[in-house]
Formats: sequence, structure tokens, C-alpha cells
Amino acid sequence: MSNEICVFEWRYGSKEMRDLFSRKNVVKTMAEVEVALLHALFKAGVINEDESKRVKEVIEKINIERINELEKKLGHDVMALTVHLAELSGAKYIHYGATSYDIIDTAYAIIFSKALNIIKQKLRNILQILLDYSSKYKDLVMVGRTHGQHALPITLGFKFSNYAYEFSRSLERLCDLEKRLVRIKMAGAVGTMAAWRDKGVEIEKYVSENLGIPPHVISTQVAPRDGFAELISDLAILGSQLDRFALEIRELMRPEILELAEGEAVERVGSSTMPHKENPVTAEKISGLAKVLRGFVIAELENIPLWHERDLTNSSSERIIISHSFLTIDEMLDSMIRLMRTLRIFPENMQKNLNLTKGLIMAESLMVNLTLKGLPRHVAHELSMNISREAEAKNKSLYEVALENKIVRQYMTEEELRRVLDPKGYLGSYNILIDRTRDYVMKVISSCI
Amino acid sequence: MSNEICVFEWRYGSKEMRDLFSRKNVVKTMAEVEVALLHALFKAGVINEDESKRVKEVIEKINIERINELEKKLGHDVMALTVHLAELSGAKYIHYGATSYDIIDTAYAIIFSKALNIIKQKLRNILQILLDYSSKYKDLVMVGRTHGQHALPITLGFKFSNYAYEFSRSLERLCDLEKRLVRIKMAGAVGTMAAWRDKGVEIEKYVSENLGIPPHVISTQVAPRDGFAELISDLAILGSQLDRFALEIRELMRPEILELAEGEAVERVGSSTMPHKENPVTAEKISGLAKVLRGFVIAELENIPLWHERDLTNSSSERIIISHSFLTIDEMLDSMIRLMRTLRIFPENMQKNLNLTKGLIMAESLMVNLTLKGLPRHVAHELSMNISREAEAKNKSLYEVALENKIVRQYMTEEELRRVLDPKGYLGSYNILIDRTRDYVMKVISSCI
Amino acid sequence: MSNEICVFEWRYGSKEMRDLFSRKNVVKTMAEVEVALLHALFKAGVINEDESKRVKEVIEKINIERINELEKKLGHDVMALTVHLAELSGAKYIHYGATSYDIIDTAYAIIFSKALNIIKQKLRNILQILLDYSSKYKDLVMVGRTHGQHALPITLGFKFSNYAYEFSRSLERLCDLEKRLVRIKMAGAVGTMAAWRDKGVEIEKYVSENLGIPPHVISTQVAPRDGFAELISDLAILGSQLDRFALEIRELMRPEILELAEGEAVERVGSSTMPHKENPVTAEKISGLAKVLRGFVIAELENIPLWHERDLTNSSSERIIISHSFLTIDEMLDSMIRLMRTLRIFPENMQKNLNLTKGLIMAESLMVNLTLKGLPRHVAHELSMNISREAEAKNKSLYEVALENKIVRQYMTEEELRRVLDPKGYLGSYNILIDRTRDYVMKVISSCI
Amino acid sequence: MSNEICVFEWRYGSKEMRDLFSRKNVVKTMAEVEVALLHALFKAGVINEDESKRVKEVIEKINIERINELEKKLGHDVMALTVHLAELSGAKYIHYGATSYDIIDTAYAIIFSKALNIIKQKLRNILQILLDYSSKYKDLVMVGRTHGQHALPITLGFKFSNYAYEFSRSLERLCDLEKRLVRIKMAGAVGTMAAWRDKGVEIEKYVSENLGIPPHVISTQVAPRDGFAELISDLAILGSQLDRFALEIRELMRPEILELAEGEAVERVGSSTMPHKENPVTAEKISGLAKVLRGFVIAELENIPLWHERDLTNSSSERIIISHSFLTIDEMLDSMIRLMRTLRIFPENMQKNLNLTKGLIMAESLMVNLTLKGLPRHVAHELSMNISREAEAKNKSLYEVALENKIVRQYMTEEELRRVLDPKGYLGSYNILIDRTRDYVMKVISSCI
Repeated sequence: MSNEICVFEWRYGSKEMRDLFSRKNVVKTMAEVEVALLHALFKAGVINEDESKRVKEVIEKINIERINELEKKLGHDVMALTVHLAELSGAKYIHYGATSYDIIDTAYAIIFSKALNIIKQKLRNILQILLDYSSKYKDLVMVGRTHGQHALPITLGFKFSNYAYEFSRSLERLCDLEKRLVRIKMAGAVGTMAAWRDKGVEIEKYVSENLGIPPHVISTQVAPRDGFAELISDLAILGSQLDRFALEIRELMRPEILELAEGEAVERVGSSTMPHKENPVTAEKISGLAKVLRGFVIAELENIPLWHERDLTNSSSERIIISHSFLTIDEMLDSMIRLMRTLRIFPENMQKNLNLTKGLIMAESLMVNLTLKGLPRHVAHELSMNISREAEAKNKSLYEVALENKIVRQYMTEEELRRVLDPKGYLGSYNILIDRTRDYVMKVISSCI
Repeated sequence: MSNEICVFEWRYGSKEMRDLFSRKNVVKTMAEVEVALLHALFKAGVINEDESKRVKEVIEKINIERINELEKKLGHDVMALTVHLAELSGAKYIHYGATSYDIIDTAYAIIFSKALNIIKQKLRNILQILLDYSSKYKDLVMVGRTHGQHALPITLGFKFSNYAYEFSRSLERLCDLEKRLVRIKMAGAVGTMAAWRDKGVEIEKYVSENLGIPPHVISTQVAPRDGFAELISDLAILGSQLDRFALEIRELMRPEILELAEGEAVERVGSSTMPHKENPVTAEKISGLAKVLRGFVIAELENIPLWHERDLTNSSSERIIISHSFLTIDEMLDSMIRLMRTLRIFPENMQKNLNLTKGLIMAESLMVNLTLKGLPRHVAHELSMNISREAEAKNKSLYEVALENKIVRQYMTEEELRRVLDPKGYLGSYNILIDRTRDYVMKVISSCI
Repeated sequence: MSNEICVFEWRYGSKEMRDLFSRKNVVKTMAEVEVALLHALFKAGVINEDESKRVKEVIEKINIERINELEKKLGHDVMALTVHLAELSGAKYIHYGATSYDIIDTAYAIIFSKALNIIKQKLRNILQILLDYSSKYKDLVMVGRTHGQHALPITLGFKFSNYAYEFSRSLERLCDLEKRLVRIKMAGAVGTMAAWRDKGVEIEKYVSENLGIPPHVISTQVAPRDGFAELISDLAILGSQLDRFALEIRELMRPEILELAEGEAVERVGSSTMPHKENPVTAEKISGLAKVLRGFVIAELENIPLWHERDLTNSSSERIIISHSFLTIDEMLDSMIRLMRTLRIFPENMQKNLNLTKGLIMAESLMVNLTLKGLPRHVAHELSMNISREAEAKNKSLYEVALENKIVRQYMTEEELRRVLDPKGYLGSYNILIDRTRDYVMKVISSCI
Repeated sequence: MSNEICVFEWRYGSKEMRDLFSRKNVVKTMAEVEVALLHALFKAGVINEDESKRVKEVIEKINIERINELEKKLGHDVMALTVHLAELSGAKYIHYGATSYDIIDTAYAIIFSKALNIIKQKLRNILQILLDYSSKYKDLVMVGRTHGQHALPITLGFKFSNYAYEFSRSLERLCDLEKRLVRIKMAGAVGTMAAWRDKGVEIEKYVSENLGIPPHVISTQVAPRDGFAELISDLAILGSQLDRFALEIRELMRPEILELAEGEAVERVGSSTMPHKENPVTAEKISGLAKVLRGFVIAELENIPLWHERDLTNSSSERIIISHSFLTIDEMLDSMIRLMRTLRIFPENMQKNLNLTKGLIMAESLMVNLTLKGLPRHVAHELSMNISREAEAKNKSLYEVALENKIVRQYMTEEELRRVLDPKGYLGSYNILIDRTRDYVMKVISSCI
């Protein structure tokens, strides 16, 4: 174990996802595709004996060392597997009429389907947490920030709802993707099904039914790689959304702000040298892994322009990036779920920060109310900007300076001004929007299984 | 004109796409969004006069120089536009309650919708050409190539059908994208619609109806950027598919192969120094531009993790990559249509190349037929491989060497062997697959308008 | 003007850099290379008349419209230029023996040299400002932050010195790059100089001397693209460093922190709807443009694997990314210089934030001093961590809680503890490091002209 | 073993490179840095006993399982290591004054140095092979290809020399990189060396001397990441150059061309279904892995803009991409060496292909000789182009058509024409260029150790 190189062997990724992409499972899945093909050959009447049974029985006996040995001799990994299966089972028609990528791409389809189910389930968990938080903190007022500067009041529930909407779009996207990606490829060496003579489409149908996955409409030697690129791209988009949420935590956990914080930070050693440190290391891990995902997109985009009926340049790159992409997003999702569940929330700091700029964040409210009272909008904008700058320069509250302003006072009473500058009264349609989001997200969750 | 820097100003891109992304049209579109907002404010009873009419009338009078001047003074481009519109029209409520990105992102939605329509139309044209070619060359036999090596026979129609399928997947993808991307954002400074008090959702509805585009369910100050990243990614996928087709032409136009060729190459000067050159420069341009698109994906993926209710780091990058992505794919599509329409096809060279390896490409057929006759598949594979290597070494045809092989002759007569090694008889279900593809593509074309 | 598409036409980039990459200048530079070649042909005795003079005289008369016309007819841009130069000058030997990329890549070398000089000069300006600030704020104590959390005290001068070091590394890198990138390519169609028979190396030498740029040692039809990729990569690295500084400003300008701020923010309209806003839009522009640069790297890396003696796929992509990369970094550098020069600094907030965590940032000092007194380091770490957590939980200062701790008191007097927990006394070798950095940077500046 | 996920565990990478990046070696190297620090603390008089000896002795006893356990408890990997080392050795001052990244980044510097030595050695091997081939095949004439089309004659030695030049530029680049990358970072929590009071610079010096690696001039908590980005970028550039060579082989091995071929292809099973296949799978693997490297660049570029004195987002991404980048390039280099050593060369096919276009590739020679005789260059170009097109259309040789052309005959005798159209006489200065390249490459090899 200590001689391992790749962090996905011991550090990152859930057990279920690691198992899915373990060499053992990949090889087993390929063997299962060979079994499905043998059964189809039998059903189509190409072979007389249903050899699939024999091979099925030996799957658990597959010996990776022996496959390595055979590959060394033969120089071909799928060939090594089929020879090994023949050795073990005595079956004669293994791989009959198939090309390696009938097996590999169909195995990918099976694994993709399972891996996407894991991802989608975790995404649904995240959505559920976000909906719960949106409801729970619906009315907890805090400052909204644009450009890192205080903008207008929002509520924490409103903030969470935005994330819920964004993540639900990723769930939707993954569902759209599946119809293009999760398809078997069972069409022989160049896609014509030639080796099966007139039985090709029938064989493909039996394999497809057996595995419960529809086939590609047509193919070259390989499944079209645009679907693979869409996959990695969708994962990178989701990863970048998780990065956005992680960034939210990392920023709001700054000691000067401290509105949200990673709950686990307290228990951990924050630094090997600074004993006081409580760092948002889970959120930082998420942000860090998002960068890797963005880079993986490039490699798979480059795999689309394969030569003619295929070249092999997709093979070595996909050996790396496919498992690594899924394990990366998997680690990010698990981390995010844990982070969300243990999130610490500091309402008192939200309140404190809301007042930090002494009412400046209500300058828009001043402007629109002046406009409603009759000032042209851009004049009201300029006036409110001047009042804001004055308040800032004199370290006074917006209310104080506005109260002393003659033009303002032509349009508003002290009472009106006070009401106009109250953050709690300036939240617009936040509650309708939160409800609308919940409905939308629930619909996505229930339709995208 | 000669002082321009960017090739999209004079070299690449169709007139319609350039017009769409010209500064003039972008500004005009933004003004139209302001008009729609004013009208909505009036309908919602926020303002008494329908100022939208006044502003609509002055749109043609917008003076970019004046906007530049105002931006210089104000340091804010959207503010400059609204002040200019106020100057021209005398309207008082322009931009009332809106934030800049209500205007910018809604203008993007309008422009995206139009730009995607252009892209989709060109993609439909390409699909139609490919379907026509698939039908026309359904039975024109040529060699299929994997790893750049001769594999098995296919037909030219079969090759084209594969491209048709692949491109139809991009059309489908763009249609899936639209429901997430083409949405107005009209929700004020941090997305709460605060400035419109309780009228926000109503105003948003009127703007949405007016423009014929649904709104985002919820938003921060900006529309969520995952949709933008999906857009650039989908364009890069499409671009990489076009690259694949271009690569097909570039390779098959090599003088040693010469099965397909760019029709326009003959008329052009191929080289400034080598008078004989006929180069696939259109196809090479397509391949070259695909690289740029792949890089653009990165920038937009990085735009997803914006801070809190937004930061501005998406703005400068999108000012570059959005127009450039659309214009790049537009140039590629137009080039591809021209390339396809003038494609030269050399059936005689296809025939010549089919026979180049003296029947080696029929080795699979030998193997499967031996298997059918009773040899275990992997034994038949090894035997056929040895016969192939021997044929190659002795520069004999596969037929000759197989005929002399004792084991082969135990299973096959000379007559059978001849039939087994005929490429024209080894095309499998190509015709069914071509038909199946046409049906699929027609369905996508008709459902993805 | 208002019909322009690309922001580099009117918005981003300095006049000098725009002029350098204007179509007019690019064409002119190519014409100058043709002139240099003609002169070399004459000197080498290949042609009898020094036609270079004639052509030199007509350079100012080059008519881009006419070139467009000729390119339309000929389908080749360099050919169009040479025909046009022949029309204008009557010279007969223009482009003799050269291939298009002798002209294009040599023109690139000239333009790269000039563009890199602009970049390097701006980088030197930035380094000078940083050194000045490092010296001026050498002793201004502020909190150092890791993970966004308070770590240990540093000084503002120390912070600036780190940036100075980092940027000096980019200057160094650009100088290392130049010896590989700025080289003429003058070797004919496939790099053998065949058209010049035995005079090739001599001609190359004359052109090289004339332009003051060394030649590539050998080449195919084009200069090797690894140098181009190194260029874009180095610019993206520099851009990402500028991004890091911009991020520093954006974060420290948050109202809750407010230690540094963009000076120009006060005068600008910060938001089209929120009159009070002062946003770090210059820094945000820098961060935004860095994303675009990172993406450009991909395209040029993909340009390295060209086919055989070259294919054309580098051409279309380089038409876009080369000018755009230089203009992007140019805009970033100018913005950074302006941002640095107008930077606002708030020492009182630095002092306030330094005390924000009530001495927690001195926990390391507590630990090391306990270790020095004899506690094993990891025991001291645990003890200091517990004291920190207790102080935090009770909202007391680290000093207060430490003072009450029995173990601590076994090792330290009250007086010692006070000294140990004083931030101003815990700055280590900051001043030596600042001096060391200044020396290093000055050496880079003076050696990398 | 069979449960491993990552292909670098069993499939790709040399033993030496895998060992270098094995978890065991990384941890051991970190322990060695702790040892070097302890020794420096002793030499600087900070501690009285040279504890480094004790710790050195226990390095071989490090138990990864125990570290895992401790990390689980403490939530910090470097802390876990130091506690474990303390447990094993009883040393009290381990990690004294250091922050985790003093250890990690210094360990990286050690590993980078070793890994780069491996890479550089393999690169030197490749250069040596290329120089040998350049010399051996100096005069073997073949056709040069641009745009995939026949251009002009070159020699195989000339082709190899171009690759030698290109790869030598990468060797040079790696040497330039080392001075920026291979530097220890030993400066404490925020880079001020505060915990070591006035002994920081001295301690750093002792560690540096001990390890034989110079320190960074200044640093934050971490070594500046621009060096890391330059590393990955340089590896991606080298990878893309290897891709270019691999592409050369893949293309020239096409059966229609067959000038070069992978030697190992004959022995391998080429396809699991097509017994005759001999595929360039080694070259395809190299091309495939280059795509992955290009993507890794993105992640490390994004690691440059860390927050303030550092954030942790570089950590998770570097855990993946650093080992994977080195192992990827390592696999590519080893594959390339094997590929080069077993390369098959087919001179007869080179000769055949040289004549394939019936002399068209000599059209430039015709043009330049006509120009020398007095025709204006662009007139000669047009004439030669017409003759070429005519020859092509009539399937005649260029010589035949030129001979019949009246204008040509005004300038040339039959004898002259024959000489002008002989490919072997049209190789320019190829031999001087090959020699010049050998000298250059030898200089790089000897200066870049």
C-alpha cells in the first residue's frame, strides 16, 4: 500500500466509486460484456451452444496476473482477456465477430451508468440539504455582496436557493447527457457488423436487451467521442459549481466576516506550526480539485477528432482521465455533503456586517424612492451617489446625511426616509423566488432519476 | 479598415454573425431590453407613462462616440448607455430598478437565441448534405481504416452516415442547452427584485413575454454561468467534430491515397513558392480553429465560480470569448458547407487502395469463417494472423497463402475461400445502419428547430 | 467604428501594442522582410540589381483593399502581397526562393521582439513600483493570511517584496524565452533552402544581419512551434501572477477588511443601480483576462504537433491567439501599473485587523517559546492549540488564557509572556529578506534588457 | 494489485520514476527534510543536541498505516508525520519553526531535481539516437510534405535533424527552468522565519547546503507557483513535440505510404478481431498521452493566483497532477526511445513516393530557374502552376509538359530542363544544416547536464 502513487488509491474517492473503477471491476465488466455477446450469438443462432453460461461461471476466477502475462506476450490487452477467458472456460466463440472496443465501450456504458447514478444520488442529497436550508433560513437577513463589496440585503435562504437552482441545472444536464452517452457499441471492427453477416443488428439487439442499455445508432470502430467530451465537460461544470459554493464558505469564514464556517475546522489541527489555525481545508480541497477537472476537459475534447474509423490516441488518455474525473467529482461531492451538514452559521455576524457600512447598502432604495417621487432616475442616481460618498467621507450613516440633504427632504419626510432605508424592508420578492426555486428543483429531482 | 487587429473584423465569420456581434448591435439590443423593461414598468403600474415608446424611437440615433465619452466620465459602460438614452429621449425611468446585468444578460439571451439559430440552420444544412451523400454513395466500397491502417471494407455512404449521426448529436445538444441558456435575467442588483418592491415578478413576466424568452427561476446579480460554460463547451465539441471531418479530408487527400479532395484546391494558389501545390487549406483552417475553441472552454469554466452574488471577472473574459466563439464556429460551419459541396470523390482510387494490401483486410473474414467451421476463435485468430504475416513477408495475396495452408483447406474449398475473401461480400449490415441513421437524423432535424 | 466586434479594437490594449498588431503593420513588416530578402539576394550575387530599394520605397503605398482583391482571386494571402508589391514596384525577384512562412515567421520574430520589449518595459515599471513600496512600507505591520485565516504578522513591505520576486521571475523567463523564440526563419519551402542552391546559408546570414535577429539552426517549412507555445505559456504565467496581485487587492478591499483599495474606485460610478458602490473593477478586469490567457495556451500547445514539414492548422489559430495574447497581457500590465500607482493604503485598518483575533495569531510564538524552554514541540503545539481554542470559545485574549494556564506559567513569567505575544516582535528576518529580494530583482532588471 | 485504479500503478511509467513518486518515497523525502532542518537547528545553536541523527535512524521504520491513523485523528498529514517521527525517535524539536510547506516544497525540490535528471537523461538518449540517424540517413532522399501534400525533396537525415533541434530546445528549456524551480523553501509559516527569531537565514543556509539546493530568495508560506506552472508547461511542450514525432511515424506507416514503421508492430497482436493488423500503437500511445499533459497545464496555471500568503487550493490538485505529469512524460520518453530504436525504414518506398506525382514536386525548381533566366518571379510562378495543373490533368510528367511549353523552351534546353527537374539535385544546403544542427545539439547536451 505504501508504494502507491496515485491519491485515488488511498486518499480521495468513496469506496463505491473506487470499486467501480478498480482494475478488477473494469476487467469483470468487460468479461460480462463478452458473456452478453455469447448469449446473443446463441439466441441469434450463430452458435449452437450457449457458451455464455460457461464463461459466466469463470468470471470470479479471472486472474489479473495471468492477463498481464498474456498481454506481455500478445501485446494486446483485450486479446489477453479473451484468451484467458477461453483458457478458463474452454469456450470457443468468445469475442466472436467483436472488436476490442465493442467490449471496452460497452463496458464503459455500463460503468458510466452506474457512476452517474452515484453522482446523481449525491447531487440529489446536496439539493435536498440546500432546499432545507433555504426554507430554514428563508428570512435570515444578511448583506448581499457583489465585487466583494456590500451591495443590498438578501437572506441566507435566498443565497442557498440560488445554489439549489444552479446545482439542479447540473442534475438536469447529466440526465440530458445520458441519452447520448450511455449506449452500447456492438458493431464489429469498423462498425459494419460484417463478421456477423446478416445477423449483426439482431445480435446487437440481444446484447442491448440483456444489458438494459440502448445501442448507438451507428458507429465506427468506437462509440463517438463527443459523448465522452460532453461527460467530462458536464463534470467540470458541476465541479466548478461546487468550487463556487466552496469559495462562498472560504470567503465568509474569513475572521473579519465570519458569517459561515466549516464545522470540522475546530476539531482538526489547522496548521503544523500555528496552533490557533482553523482552516477551511475541505472547501479548499473542493476548489483545488475543480482545477483538475477543468484541465481534463481538454484531453477529451481532443479525443473527438479521431482518424477515419478510429485511431488509438483516445485509449491512453482515457485510461487516465475517465476514472480520475469520476473519482475527482465523487470526492468533491462527498466533501461538499459533509461540509454542508456541519456548516456553522453566525447570524449575529450577519447582522453586524449588514450594518457595517452604516446604511450605504440602502442607497439604491433611496434612489428608487426618489425616482418614484418624481426625480429622473439618473439624477436620483447621481444624488444618491453623492450622499453616499459624503457619508463615507464623514463616517456618518447614510440616514444622517440624507436627512440633512435639501433635495431629499423636498421629497421625503423623516419617517419615510427611515422606512426607505431599512434593510429588512428591502428584500423584494425573495420569498416568491425561493418558493419558485423549490418547485423547480423538486421537479428536476423527481424527473431526473 | 487596414488598422484592424482582429481577424473576425475582415477575414472570418459570416456577415449575419458579424452583424449580430458588432458593437452596434450589442448596444442596440441592450437598448431594446431597456425598452422592454420600461414597458413592463408601465404595465405593472410602477410608472404612469409608457416611456418605452419614446426610447424605442431613439434607438437608431444612438451615438457610440457619445457613449464612449460618457463612459470615460462615469467609468461604467451600462450607466453611459442609460444616460445617453435619457439624453436622447427625455425618459425619466430608464433602467429603473434594474442592474447592469439585467440588461447585459438579457441582451445575451436575445443574441444567443439568434446566434444559435444561425448555427443550428447551418448544422441542418450539413446534415442534409451528409444524408444526401450517404444515400448517393451507399454502395461505393472503400477500405475502412483504423490506426491509419487498412482494417475492413466499408462504403463511402457508411462513412458519411457516421458523420451525420455525430453531427446530429451536436444539434440535439444545442437544443438541450437552449432551455438552460436562453433565459432572461431581470431581477435587480442582487436578484431579489428589491427596487420593484412587490412588483418584481410581474415586471419580469412582462419583459419575458415581450421578448418571448422565459426567465431564470432565480438568480444572483447575474445569470448562472454554468449555462455559458455549457454553451462554449458545446461549441467546442461541435468544433472538434468538424475537425474530425476536416481531418478525414486532409488525410484522404494525400497524394498516396487521394480518395477525397477539396474541390477548391485546384483553383487556388497552393503555395507562394511551389506552383504545383493543391492544399486542403479549407479543411486545415477548420482543424486550426477547433484548437482555439477548445481553449475558450477553459475561460468560461473558470467564470462559474464567481464570488457571492457575483464578481466582475466574467465580464472582461466574456467580452472576448463569447463573440469569438460564435464567430469561430460560424466560420468553421460555412467553410465546412463549402468544402462538402465541392468535395471531389475518386472511386477508382478507393478501388485501388482496397486492393493495396492484397486481400489482407479480409483476414477477419477468414478467421470468422474458420471459427464457424469449428476452429476455436482464438486458434483461428492465430492461424489467420500467421497467414497474414506470411502473405506480407512473401508479398503474396492472402488468398494465395491461405489456399496453400493445410488447416484452412481442411475447412474450406477453394470456392468457399474465394467467396470468404471478397471485400464486396463483407459489408455486414451497412445498409440497415445507414437507413437507421437517416431516420434518426431526420427526427432530430425535425424536432430540434 | 461602431461596427467593430473585437474589444481589442477599441477597449483593451495600449496604442503602441495595437499598432504593432494592426493589420497594416503586420503587412508592412512582411513587406520589410521581403525587402531584406531582396537585399540579401543581391549581396549573395543571386540577382544583379538591388531591387530591395524599389520595394522599400513602395511600402507606404501598400493598399490593403488591393491585397484583399488579389487574395480573393489567388486564394493565398502572402502570394497576394507579393503580387501587389510587384505591381507597385516593378521588382521581379520579390519572394524569390522563399516560402510564405519565411516571410510570416520572420515578421513574427520582428514583432515578437518589439512586443516583448513593450511587455518587459512595463514589467520593469511594475518591479520598480513594488521595490519602492517594499522599501516605503518595510515596517508597516499587518496580519499575514493563509487559507484566508489570520496566520502571523508580516509587513506590507514584505508582502510587496514577494510580488517583486515573483514578477522578476517572469521577466527572467521572458529573457530565457527570447533566445528560442526571436529567430528568423529563412530556409525556403521545406527548410532545405533548395531554391537558392548553394547560396542559402549566405542569404540567411544577410537577412539575419540586416534585421538584427539570429536564424533558427534548422527548420521545416516553419519555425518550430515549441517556442510559440513557450511564449503563450509564459504570458499566461505572467497573467496568472498579475491575477494573484489583483486578487490580493480585491480581497483586501472588502469593507470588512479594507487594508488596501483601488484608488480610482471613488471617482467611478460603481454600479448602474447602487449609487454607493465602489468596486475594484480594474483588479477584476485583470483577474478576468487571466482566464482568457490560460485558455490560449491550449491552442498553441496543440500547434506543436504539425504534420511532417508542416501543415497549416497553426495558421488560423495563430491569426487569433497571438495578437490577442499580447494585447491581453498588455491591457493587464497597464491596468496593473495604474492600479499600483493609485493604490490606497489603510494602516489603521491593518492595525485593527492585526488585533482582531485577540492575539491568537501569536500562538505559534507561544509554542516555539515553550519548546525552547523545554517542552517537546508536539506537546507545546497541542497545549497552544488548546489555549487558542479556549480563548476563542471564551472570547478572551490569548494572553489572558495563557496567563492562567499552569503549564505555561511553569515556563514563563508574565513579562516573558507579554513579550512572546507581541506581534511587532515576531517578524523574523523580514528585513533581510526584503533586502535580499531588492538585490535579486535589481540584478534581473539590469541583466534582462 | 488487481484493485488498483490508476494506470500509473501498473501500466505506465518506469520503475525509477514510479519509485520516486511512490507514497513511501515522498514521505521518506519529507522526513529527510525534517532531518536536514534538525541538523541546521543544531548548527545554528537553536538546539543543543543534534537530534537529526536520531530521526535519520528511524526513517526506514516509518509506518504509513500509523501515519494514516494519526492523520485521521489530527486532520493534518504533515502533522501526522512529525508526530510519528517523534514517537519513533523521541526527538523533541522535529519541525521546530517550520510550516508544512517548508517540508513539502523542499521535498518537491529534491524530487523535482531527481525527476528532471531522469527526464533529461532520456532526452539526451533521444537526441543521440536522432543525431546518429541524421548522420546515417543524411543523403537518403525522400519527399518533403507540407499540408500532407508532396512539396519538395528532403532527406531522411534532414527530417531527423529537425527533430533533434526541436528536442534540444526542450532540454535547454528544462535547464532554464531548474534555476527557478529547484529551490528549497525554508522560511516558516508566512515566509518571515519568525519562529527562528534572528537565526532564520542561517538555518535556511544550512538546510540548503545540506541538500545541495539553493533557497528561494523570498517566499510566502509556499514556494511561488509560477515555477510549478512553468514545469508542467515545459513538460507539455516536450510531450507535444513527442506527439509530433509519433504523428510522423503514424502517418508514414500508412500502407499507402509506408516509409517508416514501428518495428514492434509485427510481433504484436494488432487487433483482437483483425488478424492481419500491424498498428502503430506505441506512437498512438505517445500522441494520446500528450493530450493529458496539455490539460494538466491548466490546473497548475490556476494554482498561481493563491490568496495572500497562500491558500490550500494548490494542494489537492498538485497531489494529482505533479506525479501524473512526470509519469506521463516518462512513459512517453521510454516509449519513444523504444520506438526509435526499432524503427523500420523503407528506402524503396521513399523512392517510389518521390516519383509518385511525376515530377510535380520540382515545379518550384522550374519556377526559380525560369526566374533566374529572366522571367519575373510571379509570372514564372503562374506559368509553372499552369504547367503543373496541365500535367496533373493529362496524367503526364512535369518534364513532358514543360518540354512542350514554348515559353519554357525559350529559356531552357532539354538538357537544362532535365537537370532542373532532378529531385536529387534540389536539396539546397541540407548537409550544412544537418552539420550545424549536430553542433548545436552537442553543445546543448554538454552544457545542460
